[in-house]
Amino acid sequence: MSSSTKGKTPSRRQFLTGAAAAGAGAVAARTAGAASGDPLITEVQPWAQGLGDGVDATPYGMPISYETDVIRRNVEWLTADTISSINFTPIHALDGTITPQGCAFERHHSGAIDLRKQDYRLMINGLVDTPMVFSYADLERFPRENHVYFCECAANSGMEWAGAQLNGAQFTHGMIHNMEYTGVPLKTLLKEAGVQTAGKWIYVEGADASSNGRSIPMEKALEDVLVAFKANGEALRKEHGYPVRLVVPGWEGNMWVKWLRRIEVTDMPVESREETSKYTDVLENGIARKWTWEMDAKSIVTNPSPQAPITHGKGPLVITGLAWSGRGAITRVDVTRDGGITWETARLAAPGQSRALTRFYLDTDWDGSEMLLQSRAMDDTGYVQPSKTQLRAKRGLNSIYHNNGIQTWWVKANGEAENVEVS
Amino acid sequence: MSSSTKGKTPSRRQFLTGAAAAGAGAVAARTAGAASGDPLITEVQPWAQGLGDGVDATPYGMPISYETDVIRRNVEWLTADTISSINFTPIHALDGTITPQGCAFERHHSGAIDLRKQDYRLMINGLVDTPMVFSYADLERFPRENHVYFCECAANSGMEWAGAQLNGAQFTHGMIHNMEYTGVPLKTLLKEAGVQTAGKWIYVEGADASSNGRSIPMEKALEDVLVAFKANGEALRKEHGYPVRLVVPGWEGNMWVKWLRRIEVTDMPVESREETSKYTDVLENGIARKWTWEMDAKSIVTNPSPQAPITHGKGPLVITGLAWSGRGAITRVDVTRDGGITWETARLAAPGQSRALTRFYLDTDWDGSEMLLQSRAMDDTGYVQPSKTQLRAKRGLNSIYHNNGIQTWWVKANGEAENVEVS
Repeated sequence: MSSSTKGKTPSRRQFLTGAAAAGAGAVAARTAGAASGDPLITEVQPWAQGLGDGVDATPYGMPISYETDVIRRNVEWLTADTISSINFTPIHALDGTITPQGCAFERHHSGAIDLRKQDYRLMINGLVDTPMVFSYADLERFPRENHVYFCECAANSGMEWAGAQLNGAQFTHGMIHNMEYTGVPLKTLLKEAGVQTAGKWIYVEGADASSNGRSIPMEKALEDVLVAFKANGEALRKEHGYPVRLVVPGWEGNMWVKWLRRIEVTDMPVESREETSKYTDVLENGIARKWTWEMDAKSIVTNPSPQAPITHGKGPLVITGLAWSGRGAITRVDVTRDGGITWETARLAAPGQSRALTRFYLDTDWDGSEMLLQSRAMDDTGYVQPSKTQLRAKRGLNSIYHNNGIQTWWVKANGEAENVEVS
Repeated sequence: MSSSTKGKTPSRRQFLTGAAAAGAGAVAARTAGAASGDPLITEVQPWAQGLGDGVDATPYGMPISYETDVIRRNVEWLTADTISSINFTPIHALDGTITPQGCAFERHHSGAIDLRKQDYRLMINGLVDTPMVFSYADLERFPRENHVYFCECAANSGMEWAGAQLNGAQFTHGMIHNMEYTGVPLKTLLKEAGVQTAGKWIYVEGADASSNGRSIPMEKALEDVLVAFKANGEALRKEHGYPVRLVVPGWEGNMWVKWLRRIEVTDMPVESREETSKYTDVLENGIARKWTWEMDAKSIVTNPSPQAPITHGKGPLVITGLAWSGRGAITRVDVTRDGGITWETARLAAPGQSRALTRFYLDTDWDGSEMLLQSRAMDDTGYVQPSKTQLRAKRGLNSIYHNNGIQTWWVKANGEAENVEVS
């Protein structure tokens, strides 16, 4: 874990060499329209011989048929049923930072419910001057904000506490998505109701059968929590809480209550079923940590990875992944190819934004030998993502949640990758 | 067009008054669970009585059934067929800035074609040292960038040259979308091929039957053009050019060639069919402006608007819309409610980003009287969006393209809105 060098862009000569070695890749055509031997170049391409689809073909479009593998997936053995379960974002197949709603992970405690806007009500009660009930149309009359935030399930990477379990970034790190939310700041609605001096917490509840009630300290409620009704510009999808969900930036996903029904202002946390039987972290000595709301800084290499092997052989290779922190903005991501002996600082696609995903790239040259690939995120609080060993030394092996340890992909000489552990 | 005042946030008392006047809205519940008379509050809600959908219900999700009106729409009389036509983004129903691919407008010259990644080739030829052909896998080996940009059809608002024609923001201003693109800078690929000194232009061509060839000056090609393969994180949709399209930030949409097949480096523009028979602007005197690539600063109030009337009566009202400029970042948007006599400066949801959509809000209070609602954008070059009258005085009435005149919605006392012209 010593030297840190800037990633270098592969030169043209390296690229052509690499491509040739892989028996494919860029070929030099001698002249325009030259007989390159590739019928896709030299003949009239079949798709240029006729007309395509009209603009009335898909009033609302879906991905092209060739991308049917880029979908949310669940793991059958993980939970007793799929109603109270989780699925995973196909992060190994995405790039950039925005997650389309259609493939953004879901987690339900009693399934995704069907709730019309006209049936929607939000109650604010408890320690307030004027208990209130808002309709959907009421919410639309308050000043709105737009923000991009990541939402990560507390259990993301949870199976990895016991060692390398699941073979793919989608399954080890895919309980995350990142969207642009439009909504009303919760502080505006709380002000409307008038929080009494004794009101130090809120208890938030969804309209589904589980209700998924969680306690949130008033300080956070007044800081940046949104009562959101749009994601990536359009209405929330059913599975993301249509018509209204809570957005709790940087904090664990289960607090982002969907189908938001009620906000009770209280003097104490409720210690509900959802925050005692779940979402606490049992340490080595049997004592449980609680109120571990903030998601620690974390990162993952999405390509190459077990579901996205290197198929082009040696030469220029783009290593890429995602980094995030519940405490602020990502300032730096380092990547190692040798299991942590040497680190290189990756290029951030854009300056890190607070509590949103950051895309990183390492533009490099692969000599075709094995790699132990890891990434390590740093945020603007100075926090550095720990190794799994460091994490286990502090927290033991009994946890489910908040595993932000450094992940390792063993990339083999044939380009395939496997989930492994290095000490 | 005189005074400019900051928008004021409606007070709580105003809100309650407004809500009461509309016979709906927020109601004060005396205590938690109080009998408010609303069965959706006092009884066990039907959707809380059972389980919802499991996480395997929709591997790739679509909008909920209640949002089936939020779709792309075409205008049947506009073109002879739907293969070579346009549809419109439902901007009246969206918020924030990101446009989901599924409802982002389409324009095709010979329909949306079906092209597999493995059949994809991109040729760079002409005045280059080494003519090259890239496969899709080759493109993935070059350093990538991510950027959010708007794409606007040159003909957006084109029907409005002749006066108020189409009744709805979707139809007057919906030939626009805004996505986060991931791709390889074109300059990287041109460097790979080696542009010769005589190479001053590029000619870009799609793989569809129309080929939609356009000339772009080398200066722009080397500035910020992207060879993109992802939009909003996932693969381009078929109708947006899967697997690869050109992104030409700030410039008219027809230059953003889809199913990108060939880039020829030339010493002169080609003056192709697509840039002579179309995409020139015939002025009053019969002379045509050409090479009008940049999209001028423009804005539109999306709510209220003809497809999104005010339904809640007087009181607090959020007026919102979009602004953009092909020359840079939006710095300010002013809104008038009286057809241009007095203007108020709207709140930008975030600082303007270069060549990307900016969302603006005016949080106001409606007294229930008629409004002549307009918005006026300004960009960081100092450009101010003109009135339609100013535009016609310069450009006559024969144009189809580049109508960035100020739009007027006549909002009536009943909350309905109509597309009108004011001088």
